[in-house]
Formats: sequence, structure tokens, C-alpha cells
Amino acid sequence: MSLGEFDIIARYFAGHGSRRDVLLGIGDDAAVLEVPAGQRLVVAMDTLAEGAHYPAGTAATDIGYRSLAVNLSDLAAMGAVPSWMTLSLSLPSAQADWLEGFAAGLFQLADRHGVALIGGDTIRGPAVITVQIAGWVEADGWMTRSGARPGDVVYVSGVPGEAAAGLALIQDPLPGRSSRSWPAPPPEPCAAEHLRQRFLRPEPRVALGRALRGIASAAMDVSDGLLADLGKLCVASGCGATLDTDALPPSAAMQALFDVAASLDFTLAGGDDYELLFTVPAERVPLLAALGSEVPCTRIGTITREQGVTCLRAGQPFIAKRQGHDHFGA
Amino acid sequence: MSLGEFDIIARYFAGHGSRRDVLLGIGDDAAVLEVPAGQRLVVAMDTLAEGAHYPAGTAATDIGYRSLAVNLSDLAAMGAVPSWMTLSLSLPSAQADWLEGFAAGLFQLADRHGVALIGGDTIRGPAVITVQIAGWVEADGWMTRSGARPGDVVYVSGVPGEAAAGLALIQDPLPGRSSRSWPAPPPEPCAAEHLRQRFLRPEPRVALGRALRGIASAAMDVSDGLLADLGKLCVASGCGATLDTDALPPSAAMQALFDVAASLDFTLAGGDDYELLFTVPAERVPLLAALGSEVPCTRIGTITREQGVTCLRAGQPFIAKRQGHDHFGA
Repeated sequence: MSLGEFDIIARYFAGHGSRRDVLLGIGDDAAVLEVPAGQRLVVAMDTLAEGAHYPAGTAATDIGYRSLAVNLSDLAAMGAVPSWMTLSLSLPSAQADWLEGFAAGLFQLADRHGVALIGGDTIRGPAVITVQIAGWVEADGWMTRSGARPGDVVYVSGVPGEAAAGLALIQDPLPGRSSRSWPAPPPEPCAAEHLRQRFLRPEPRVALGRALRGIASAAMDVSDGLLADLGKLCVASGCGATLDTDALPPSAAMQALFDVAASLDFTLAGGDDYELLFTVPAERVPLLAALGSEVPCTRIGTITREQGVTCLRAGQPFIAKRQGHDHFGA
Repeated sequence: MSLGEFDIIARYFAGHGSRRDVLLGIGDDAAVLEVPAGQRLVVAMDTLAEGAHYPAGTAATDIGYRSLAVNLSDLAAMGAVPSWMTLSLSLPSAQADWLEGFAAGLFQLADRHGVALIGGDTIRGPAVITVQIAGWVEADGWMTRSGARPGDVVYVSGVPGEAAAGLALIQDPLPGRSSRSWPAPPPEPCAAEHLRQRFLRPEPRVALGRALRGIASAAMDVSDGLLADLGKLCVASGCGATLDTDALPPSAAMQALFDVAASLDFTLAGGDDYELLFTVPAERVPLLAALGSEVPCTRIGTITREQGVTCLRAGQPFIAKRQGHDHFGA
């Protein structure tokens, strides 16, 4: 099936949803948008490529969902309201099935968050997908990575590590082969499916991010691994942290399928969580408790004056096996 | 040389230029920007891949320049003021020479237009580059493709076709081999260099676009070929056009190196011009003349009530050899 560039846009991506603040959408040289008066524009961009961000064989609908989810997660970390996205789709060929699936996954999440696709580019090239998300936040109301101060309490939302465990299961359906010293039992189907879905369908914490404005002193999303990302937050804030690994939220699904060491490694260094990592000054901790957030937030550590992140296990410092992810690293 | 993702950003892309309206730039989960009060946000995105958008062997500095130029051209067509860009860089490896050249070309053009790099993504993957540009325009002051009306005069800026001729020379240094019936003379060096530069260093018509607000009834940039793009403007405006090929601005450089038929083909269907194609109601033509624009604008046709674009040569309709470019077309 041979689809032209303009057919692709018209058939799969144009005319989906509408927002009053999109004054001119897909189809012209550029889009024209109305930012609410007194608000600040918030912008993030993420790029996905097969292998680096999702395994070969991932369903198009999951890729479409993911390409937006990772961007929404960035806006969540800022406390912003997402509103518009642009999409760059570089594809070796225009396959109707793939495009239909991709668009379905993308718009499933977009519609849930009221995000309109306002433009982009579609080219024939190697498979690389870029989404830019834009939204808005109240003037001086946004969160950054750099506001943490010694004594602040460190929290993480959800259950970090499950996504990495899910990816491991997708890549190797016999989990823990190398880390278990006894023959691996067959994977427990529900636990395995839960973990796979945590990788394939991360839930951007947009509502939590909004709720944390005025409570969190610093926030970021966890994409490169909890330990590495906490390290970045500390560097940006000019401080350090202790991370109490015994306090990490347990995952029944990981416990069912992986040993303690593998689970801890997924949690500390696995990446792809898209949970929020944030710090709260001690006096505002009651405000967090009063939020009644649907997603659980767990106290996992404390910001320190001393630089660097120290992991504690049973009160003793220890060195984690891996430190996190760098796309161009060795 | 092994560079990490964060080294790349810090070494080549961070801390370059500054704007007061960038409240939070590179380094956090997202950027935070201040859109001037009462203005509308204008957004465009273009993606480049080797082969489709520039030939293999193109210098990194030219690729960097180009990746922004094609986006600035979209904003020029809207009459907008460019202000911020984001960059997605998918690269198979991190080569310091290439990154340095790319950044030099990108920032050369960015600095000239006061555009700040506010964020993006850097991944290891196949070579694909996406830039998103954002800027602003006065409320209700922007131009679209859809405002042309029967009787409006059609103009084009600069000399369309030269970029395509330049690309042909880059790809095949013996020009016109197939279209000339006599042995080709050696290329005239200055003419050839002029044409190559027109492809490698397109000049986005930002100032002209700003000046055309209130004068042009419709505008777009010419990227897929004059004829194809005029056709798109007509479809968007619900009308047609005649295009007088005898009125097209002549190119001394093309005349020196290509025969009449090849030159006309480059001009009508070549693409990569990044000139502005626009329409002006008859009563506003004197305003255009009074602009004193530095880039010449040539009257090349008329908007008609009848759909479709009719090419005229010596007053007679004729069918052009090629119709323009579609990235996924046959």
C-alpha cells in the first residue's frame, strides 16, 4: 500500500480532537496557539528509536502511547498542564497497519489528557519518532530539579523498578536466569503481565505533578533510573541525599518473579519508570499527606548538605551494582 | 572519543545565547518560557534525514544550519518572530568533530535571528535530526495559506529553482549531462558555487514575512517545488491560479550551466527554495512596492476562481514535466 506524506497526515493524524486555544492547527506552515493570559509556556521533547527506547517487535500502538507518555511525564514533573503536541515521524515506509496502531495508541493517551496534535513532520527515513509537548503553568508556579534543600524529605511515586522488570521479561521471558542459583520456575502469568504493562504503558503523573505545586521543593521524572536521577536532582540543587533502600515501595510482582538482588537493581538503576521523584520540606509533609493522591508516594530518603547520593541498607551504606542510563555512555 | 549524552549537551549545546523570556532553559525536565502578552504562539517542526533532505557527505555545519533554516522559513511564512528552538538529535555515535560543526552551523543562524535553544533530546540511533521552532505573532496578525481570493496577484521572493540546481550540481558535478544534446562544457565555477550555496545555505525570509503582514492575503514557504506549493495554497484557499512561466525571475547562474528546459524544471518542481510564495489583493500591490524589501519579489501569476494551477508559456497553457515532491510518493 502506497501512502503519500499528505495522505498519512490526513488519514491518521489530522482532525483529531479540538481545543479552543488552537487557533490554527495541522495543515499550514505552522500552528498558531493561544497561551492563557498570565501563564508560562512549558516545553519538553523526547525522541524514541527502536532498541534504545523499546525492543524490536513492540506493537505500534504501544510505541504511539509511549511517544507521548514520556513527554507528558516531563510536563508532570514541572507541575504543568499539557495542551499541545507536535510529532515528527521518520519511517522507512508507510504501512497502513502500523500507522493506524501508532495513531490509536498516541491519541488514546492524548485524548485522556486533552492534548491536541497541532503539527509536525512526516518523512521517509530510518525509524525515529520525536514528540514535543507544550503546556502551561501558573507564573512562578512551576517546579524544577534545583529547589531541594538539606533536610527536605525525598519521595517517589508509584513503584519504581517495575517497568525495568517488565522490559527484562519482554526481552527474556525466563526471568532471573542469570541471577537465580536454582532453576527458574515458569513466570507467574499475572505478575509478568503486570510488569510488562508497566513498561509498555507508563502512566504519566500529570495530576500528581499539578497537586505538588506549592508542596514539593524540587521534582523530576524518573526515566534513567532512580539512583541516577536522584543524583541529577542533587547536583542541580547543590546538595546530596541518602536513599534508604529498605523504604523503597515493594513490588509483589517483582517479588514473585525475581530475587531480591535483581529487584533492587531494577528499582535503583532500571529506568523507564516515569514516576515522579520529588522533595518536600519537613514542614510541608502534612500537606502531602492531606493530598489524598491516587498514586501512592513513598518517603525514601533525605536531602543532605554533603554532595552525592548514599544508599543505605539496614542503616549501612552500600554501593549499588549499576548507576543508571546514559544513551551515549559505554 | 566517547562522549556521554550529558557531556554532549553541556559541551556543544548549553549556555549558548540568552533571552529574557527563557525563564528556565536546558537542563531540567522541560523549559519554561514567557510569551509576550497579547501575542500568539507560532510553532513549526521539521525533520531531516540524510538522503531525503541533504546528500551524503554534506558538511555537519551545513546540516546544522539547514535544520534551523527550514524551520525559520515556516515561521517567516506566518509573519512570526522566531524566538526559541528545541533540537532532537538521533546519532549513531557521538563524534566531536561532527557535533562541533553541527552546533557551529546551527548557532550561526540562531544567533543571527536571536533564537535560543531551550531543550531537546539526544539519543543514540539512526541519524535523524528534528528541530522545532517557536515564536510569536500579533493576535490576528498571522498569515495563512488559505486567504487567497480570485484576482489576487501571485508573488514569489528570490529566485526559485537555484537551490534545486545547486543540489543537482552537488550530486553530479557535470551538470546537464542528460538534458543537453551537445557535450557539456566544464561548469563555470562561480555560477556553480552560487547555486550550491543556494541549496546549502537557504536564507529564511523572516524579515520579508514580517513585512508582508497586512499586505499579503496568503503566504507559504516554497519547500516542495513552486508548482506543487502553489497548488497547496490554492487548495487551502479554495481557488486556482495561473502561473506565467515567462515572468519567473531568471537565474544567470542556472542559465550559465543548464539549458532552458532543465532550468524551468528546477524552478517549477525542484524544491528546497525556502522562498516565500504569497498573494496580494490588487489594491494592496502598491503597498508591496513601497516596502523596499531587500529580497526581490516577482509577480508570477494570478489567483483564479477555477480550481487547479495552469502554467502558461508565451500565453499558452502547458503541462510541466514534474509536479513536485512528496516524501512517501512513488
